[in-house]
Amino acid sequence: MEEMEIDLKERVLSALEKKNVAELRDIFETVPNIDIAEAIDEVTDPALLLFIFRNVNNDYTAEFFQELTINQQELLINAFSDKQLIELLDNSFADDIVDSLEELPANVVTRILKVCPKDMRADVNRLLNYKDDTAGSVMTTEYISLLDKTTVKDAIKEIRQKGRDAETVYTIFVRDSSRTLVGTVDLDDLIFAKETETLEDIMNLDFVTCSVNDDQEAVANMFKRYDLTAMAVTVRGGKIAGIITVDDVVDIIVEEATEDMAHMNAVSDMEDPYLKTPIFKLVWKCVPWIVCLMLLQIGSAFITSSFDYLIESCAILAVFSPLILDAGGNSGGQTTTLIVRSIALDEFERGDFKRVIWKEFRVALIIALIIGTFATLWTFFEISVLGIGSIPETIELGNEIHNVTLSGLAANFVVALLVGTTLLVTMIVSRMIGCCLPFLAKKIHVDPAVMCGPFTTTIVDVVSLLTYFLMWSYIFAPLLFK
Amino acid sequence: MEEMEIDLKERVLSALEKKNVAELRDIFETVPNIDIAEAIDEVTDPALLLFIFRNVNNDYTAEFFQELTINQQELLINAFSDKQLIELLDNSFADDIVDSLEELPANVVTRILKVCPKDMRADVNRLLNYKDDTAGSVMTTEYISLLDKTTVKDAIKEIRQKGRDAETVYTIFVRDSSRTLVGTVDLDDLIFAKETETLEDIMNLDFVTCSVNDDQEAVANMFKRYDLTAMAVTVRGGKIAGIITVDDVVDIIVEEATEDMAHMNAVSDMEDPYLKTPIFKLVWKCVPWIVCLMLLQIGSAFITSSFDYLIESCAILAVFSPLILDAGGNSGGQTTTLIVRSIALDEFERGDFKRVIWKEFRVALIIALIIGTFATLWTFFEISVLGIGSIPETIELGNEIHNVTLSGLAANFVVALLVGTTLLVTMIVSRMIGCCLPFLAKKIHVDPAVMCGPFTTTIVDVVSLLTYFLMWSYIFAPLLFK
Repeated sequence: MEEMEIDLKERVLSALEKKNVAELRDIFETVPNIDIAEAIDEVTDPALLLFIFRNVNNDYTAEFFQELTINQQELLINAFSDKQLIELLDNSFADDIVDSLEELPANVVTRILKVCPKDMRADVNRLLNYKDDTAGSVMTTEYISLLDKTTVKDAIKEIRQKGRDAETVYTIFVRDSSRTLVGTVDLDDLIFAKETETLEDIMNLDFVTCSVNDDQEAVANMFKRYDLTAMAVTVRGGKIAGIITVDDVVDIIVEEATEDMAHMNAVSDMEDPYLKTPIFKLVWKCVPWIVCLMLLQIGSAFITSSFDYLIESCAILAVFSPLILDAGGNSGGQTTTLIVRSIALDEFERGDFKRVIWKEFRVALIIALIIGTFATLWTFFEISVLGIGSIPETIELGNEIHNVTLSGLAANFVVALLVGTTLLVTMIVSRMIGCCLPFLAKKIHVDPAVMCGPFTTTIVDVVSLLTYFLMWSYIFAPLLFK
Repeated sequence: MEEMEIDLKERVLSALEKKNVAELRDIFETVPNIDIAEAIDEVTDPALLLFIFRNVNNDYTAEFFQELTINQQELLINAFSDKQLIELLDNSFADDIVDSLEELPANVVTRILKVCPKDMRADVNRLLNYKDDTAGSVMTTEYISLLDKTTVKDAIKEIRQKGRDAETVYTIFVRDSSRTLVGTVDLDDLIFAKETETLEDIMNLDFVTCSVNDDQEAVANMFKRYDLTAMAVTVRGGKIAGIITVDDVVDIIVEEATEDMAHMNAVSDMEDPYLKTPIFKLVWKCVPWIVCLMLLQIGSAFITSSFDYLIESCAILAVFSPLILDAGGNSGGQTTTLIVRSIALDEFERGDFKRVIWKEFRVALIIALIIGTFATLWTFFEISVLGIGSIPETIELGNEIHNVTLSGLAANFVVALLVGTTLLVTMIVSRMIGCCLPFLAKKIHVDPAVMCGPFTTTIVDVVSLLTYFLMWSYIFAPLLFK
């Protein structure tokens, strides 16, 4: 694979340097655009890039342009004559132009909008105005929509004429005389139909649509649920404003999953590939989260500090506290993952919150019993057999000296029971918090994934430590010392 | 939305009870199959289910069948006559049948394979034999492949005849006389072409393919990269064995992202929706991870235990250790997330490992300097202003009493510097481990996500605690006490 890539790079560069048009055209005919674009992603000589656009068929170059780096796109636009630029825009889809405009510098954007044909400019401006991550911002305006009274014969004729400019001809959107979407026709149904039938006779009525302001994640979930290849985006009254095609949805799904994964693990959005992200941007994605979590950490520092006399008198408490903190964090994180993912995939309906909480409570209870028991046995083994941690002969509490009353395995078991019981509480609390936080986040319109992963840990830490020290003070230390 | 769902449920149930065929047909014409299936997912009366299959058009029922619960599918198959079952199979795609077979009980599977038409049975058996999560296991065998010498006119004729049985007619696969795939034709190019041209004249040569044994995640990445709607799956020599369509790829992408997210957060696969997963299955997805991590925790317990005399003499060490452990875990998790995701999206080529490590080292260094400095200042603030933790007047080390030599802010600063310096080391170590583990996992053919999230934390814990206690013993305690 890698060898092939190096070969391709050499092949393209050599064709460009030798001005070998035949070879260049052959490459574009037989190799996917994105592979060629990647092979020459370091070429910054406008003359070489222009050479491609002058000699390769328009069918390839408009798509190829979108695969170039933003830097190369800028170089090219500055090198293009107005005529060349108009030709490129004519062959591009409005949504792709919008994608480029959002990254190009202002002066280049101005030039593009100036030479842009009038109706495309209107489309582009409208698309630019939709809020990020809404259906409006990802839709395109090049689609085929025909009147319901159109005959199959006329429809095929019209598709032959307009099809080249549409993002997809596989789904034809059928509208009535008031421009309201009334059905869809798949291209294959159209070519299988009798020529005299009308679209109304053959159209699907069980189509689904979304609205321009719908979240792109919800749109992606609809594509998945209904196995769509294209969907109409409508404005008030069911009038069609644009369409979204499945290739964009594939990107949305990957982007949303990546975002959730990042947020749950305390990283800001990772929109660019790792190796292409500048070092300081990577730093900036990570540092604020750690700082923020350190500030929140004050809760557990405060609690440990309040009980430091317990640790001083009995350091074995400090030996097992990381076990409790880690297990609580992991267990809360597990629940959060299950819930955040289910919310993202739109599994829950309104009113399901109570069902989820009740289910999670039962799951938590069972896990708590298992882990509590296991932790007791495991801690007992660690102390008794592996000699980890030691129980002091005397402890000093409130200026009084208390002597140990139990010895050997019995004493070890009391400490093990403290760890196990704390974990029992920690497991239940961590799972309930890990389950509620995502719903709370959704309620207050914050991305559930942002709020959850590490924040759950921070809250659970406080509860666990408090349980640990209080249970020691009031239940287990009195059992062990008098 | 929810109201609509309740309405639909009542509407379908009432149509079924009243045997209202017209209403039932109207529902199937205007409502997507999956919505109807969900509305009646609690219906377990075979008579009612059979009523649907007897009265609704075949065009709808084959797809509708796939959306029913496995329990309902089983009831129906047992209730079907052989003739009805054959009809259903005839209208289904081999890959959908395989999906059902993998979940249905053995006796039902036997019956299906018995009545299955001979060539479909061969297809189904072949598909069943491919390893899970390979291209072969997700492909289907119903596609249109035509000879390169076929004229456009004949091609359209053939598509009209065979198209109904194909999973997609939008991509036509072109083969030569030796059955090797030589090109693809998009349906729109076909209907725009002159009737006398041959497929060879108009076919795309820049197509990509995958092999039956390729991982489904790699296939999904290709669909994303090349914006495909269908791709041929080939066997040795480039002969076509089946195709994969984009609707299946959407499911694969969601499934793979969910799996990675789960594994990184210590949950086993979550293939079913939360509310539909039995409680004990949820328990089983979580418990083994926590148990396993507890066993690994023995490293940090052992280290804390070895240094318990330091904690006993100076409990402030225990106050700030959770801060260090949490920050190390979070920071390692951040790197792991970035790398696991990049590996999943196939961003790295062979040989990139060194570039990644070197880049990550620089990122880690900058983050370590920032966080180290911040942690020093923040800890200093916590001790000096908020009164968290207190520094003892004397400490006992190796039976010798050491008196504090610095007091007030200077003493606080020494402890703060210990925390900051430890974090400096922790940040670098955690990011380097978080970066290497996923690559190591990939090398030994383990899912990078499984190995990484919580395991990074466990290793980082050991390193951080060791650094913390050793630096205190050899550098900072001697500064503070004599």
